[in-house]
Amino acid sequence: MAAEVEVVKNKQVLLKDYVTGFPKESDVIISTENTISLKVPENSSGVLVKNLYLSCDPFMRGLMRKPAPNSRTPLPAYKPASPIYGFVVAKVVDSSHPKFKKDDLVWGLAGWEEYSLITETDLLFKIEHTDVPLSYYTGILGLAGITAYGGFYEVCNPKKGEKVFVSAASGAVGQLVGQFAKLTGCYVVGSAGSKEKVDLLKNKFGFDGAFNYKEEHDLDAALKRHFPQGIDIYFENVGGKMLDAVLLNMNMFGRIAVCGMISQYNLDEPEGVKNLMWLIHKRINMRGYSAAEYYPHYTKFLDLVLPHIREKKITYVEDIAEGLESVPAALAGLFSGRNVGKQVIVVARE
Amino acid sequence: MAAEVEVVKNKQVLLKDYVTGFPKESDVIISTENTISLKVPENSSGVLVKNLYLSCDPFMRGLMRKPAPNSRTPLPAYKPASPIYGFVVAKVVDSSHPKFKKDDLVWGLAGWEEYSLITETDLLFKIEHTDVPLSYYTGILGLAGITAYGGFYEVCNPKKGEKVFVSAASGAVGQLVGQFAKLTGCYVVGSAGSKEKVDLLKNKFGFDGAFNYKEEHDLDAALKRHFPQGIDIYFENVGGKMLDAVLLNMNMFGRIAVCGMISQYNLDEPEGVKNLMWLIHKRINMRGYSAAEYYPHYTKFLDLVLPHIREKKITYVEDIAEGLESVPAALAGLFSGRNVGKQVIVVARE
Repeated sequence: MAAEVEVVKNKQVLLKDYVTGFPKESDVIISTENTISLKVPENSSGVLVKNLYLSCDPFMRGLMRKPAPNSRTPLPAYKPASPIYGFVVAKVVDSSHPKFKKDDLVWGLAGWEEYSLITETDLLFKIEHTDVPLSYYTGILGLAGITAYGGFYEVCNPKKGEKVFVSAASGAVGQLVGQFAKLTGCYVVGSAGSKEKVDLLKNKFGFDGAFNYKEEHDLDAALKRHFPQGIDIYFENVGGKMLDAVLLNMNMFGRIAVCGMISQYNLDEPEGVKNLMWLIHKRINMRGYSAAEYYPHYTKFLDLVLPHIREKKITYVEDIAEGLESVPAALAGLFSGRNVGKQVIVVARE
Repeated sequence: MAAEVEVVKNKQVLLKDYVTGFPKESDVIISTENTISLKVPENSSGVLVKNLYLSCDPFMRGLMRKPAPNSRTPLPAYKPASPIYGFVVAKVVDSSHPKFKKDDLVWGLAGWEEYSLITETDLLFKIEHTDVPLSYYTGILGLAGITAYGGFYEVCNPKKGEKVFVSAASGAVGQLVGQFAKLTGCYVVGSAGSKEKVDLLKNKFGFDGAFNYKEEHDLDAALKRHFPQGIDIYFENVGGKMLDAVLLNMNMFGRIAVCGMISQYNLDEPEGVKNLMWLIHKRINMRGYSAAEYYPHYTKFLDLVLPHIREKKITYVEDIAEGLESVPAALAGLFSGRNVGKQVIVVARE
C-alpha cells in the first residue's frame, strides 16, 4: 500500500499583469489558492524544495515585460496570473534526482512560493558550506557573487593600481566588486543614490571615494573630481547618462564590464548613449556578459571568497524582509533604490 | 662656399576656419603664398619630401573641429589659416634622418602641400615594394590596410563560417574587410549608400550580399533579411541608427570592432544609441581601436596582403582626383559619400 502523500497549502507570488514603467507593489499579488503534494510525482524527475530565502534581482524586471514576438531571451517571461520565479535558497523535501537528496540545502532558480517542484536542475547548486549565513547564497555566494567575480576578474582583467569606478555600488553586486577591487590593490570609487549608501561605501566597504549621483547635476564633473587621472575600469550597472559621462573619463585601453543597466529597465524607450566615439578615441573594450558564463567557475569562486568572508576581509550587507507578503514592496523598492544592500526575502528560516 | 639652396613655390591646402556640420568645399582653400627651401635646415633633424599622393580619410573631420578646452586627442587639430595635414605618399628630396635618404619613397603623416618638411618621423614608413601601384600606400598598403587588418583579424578574431556585416563597405577600409572575410571563409554582407557601390560590393569585391541603406526604411528588417541566422561580427564604420539595428541582430558572443562612426562626425550632437542592453543579452564584445595599435605589425601585414594583391585575390578600388586644387571637393565629398572607393588625390606622379 502506498504511503499517504502529504498535500499542503502553498502560498505563491503571482504576476498580476505585464508591467510597464516602474514596477508597483500592485503588480504582483499573494495567492493562497494553490496546494502542493510534498512528493515528486512518480512520472517526473525533479526536486521538491521548501523555499527559505528569495533573492530580489534586477534581471527580474525584464521578465515582467510582455515578450516581443520572436524574442529569444535566455529566460522565459513571467505569465500573468502565474507564479513568478527567481533565485532562491531552499531545502530539499523530496528528490528523484540522483544529485540531490532530502534535507540537502540548495540554491538556484525556483518559483516564488512556499514549496516548489524544480524539474530543470541545470541551475540548481548544492550548498556545501553552512558555516556562513545561509542567506548569503542569495547574494555573495550565489548569483551576485559569481556576477561580481566574473565581471571584475575575468571581463575587466584588473591590475594593481588601476582606477576603478562602480555604479550602483552599494547593491548586491557593486559592494562586492568594490571589495574585490580593493583586494586587488586598485583605487575604487562608487556611486549610489542616497547619503546612507554613500556612507556605507566609504565606511563599511572601504571604497576610496563615493558620491550620490542624485546630488550631482554634472556627472562628468563628479567623475573628473574623483578621477583626476581617469578611469581604467568601469563596472557598469546603470547605463544611460552615467555611461555617457564615464565614456568621457576613460583612460586609454580602458575596460567596461556591462553587467546591467538598471536606470533603463523601466523606461518605455531607453535613453540614447551619445559618447560611443570615445570607444575609439580611448581604444576601450566594452563587454556585455552574464553570470551564466562563469557558473563553471563556481567552485574556484568559492575557494576565493569563502576564506575572505571567514576572515572578515569581505563584508556583505543585506536588506532582509520577512515573509512572502513582503515581496511586492521589496520588488518595487529594488527599482526605486529603496533597498540598502542586497534585497533578500525570508520565507522560512528552516 | 655653401652650395646654393633651391627655394621653390609651395602650394598648400589651408583650413579656412573651424568647421561645424558637414564640411563644405569652401572650408579649405588653396594658397600659393608659401615658398620652401628644398633642403632640411641645418639645425633640424628631419626629412624634406615632395608629396605625390594624398589620402582623404574620415578621421580628418575630427581635426577640423575647434578643439575643446583640455581635450587630449591623439592628433592635434588643424589651425585656421594653416596647412591641413594627413596621410601622404611622398618622395624624399633631402634628409638629415639616418633612416631616410634622397629618392626614398615613403608614406606617413605630412602637411597637404607640394613639399613638406617632416620633423616627426615616428609615423613615416619607407616604401620597399614598388611593383604595385604607388597610390596603394595611401590605402590598402597604408592606413586603411592596417586599419582593416587590425580590426578584422586582431579585434574580431574571425572564424571560418562566421557571419560578418560591414558598414560603409565600399570605402577604403570596408572593401578590404569584406575581402579579408571572404578569404577567411566567412559569409559577408555590406551596406553602402548608392546602387553603384552596392554593385561594386557584389560584383567586384565578392560580398555575399549588399544593400543600399538609404533605400531601407527599416534597417533592422534589412539585416534580418540578409542575416536570418544573425551576425557574429560587425565591422563598425558608421555608428548611429545602423549600430542600433545591428545590436538587435547580433549572435551570442558576437564581436563589434569600432573603427569609425562616420554618420556622426558632422552632427552637432551625436545620435543616441539605444540598444546597448543587447551587449548583455548577447554577451557582445565591442572594442574601439586605432590603426596605430597595429603599426608594429606592418611588415607581417605586408607579407599577408602583397601576395594577395599580386595574385589578384584582393582588388582595390580607388577614386582618384587630380591636383591639390581637387582637395576641397574631394574632402567634402568624402562626408557626403560621393567617392566610390578610396579617395586619393594625385599631387605629382613622381
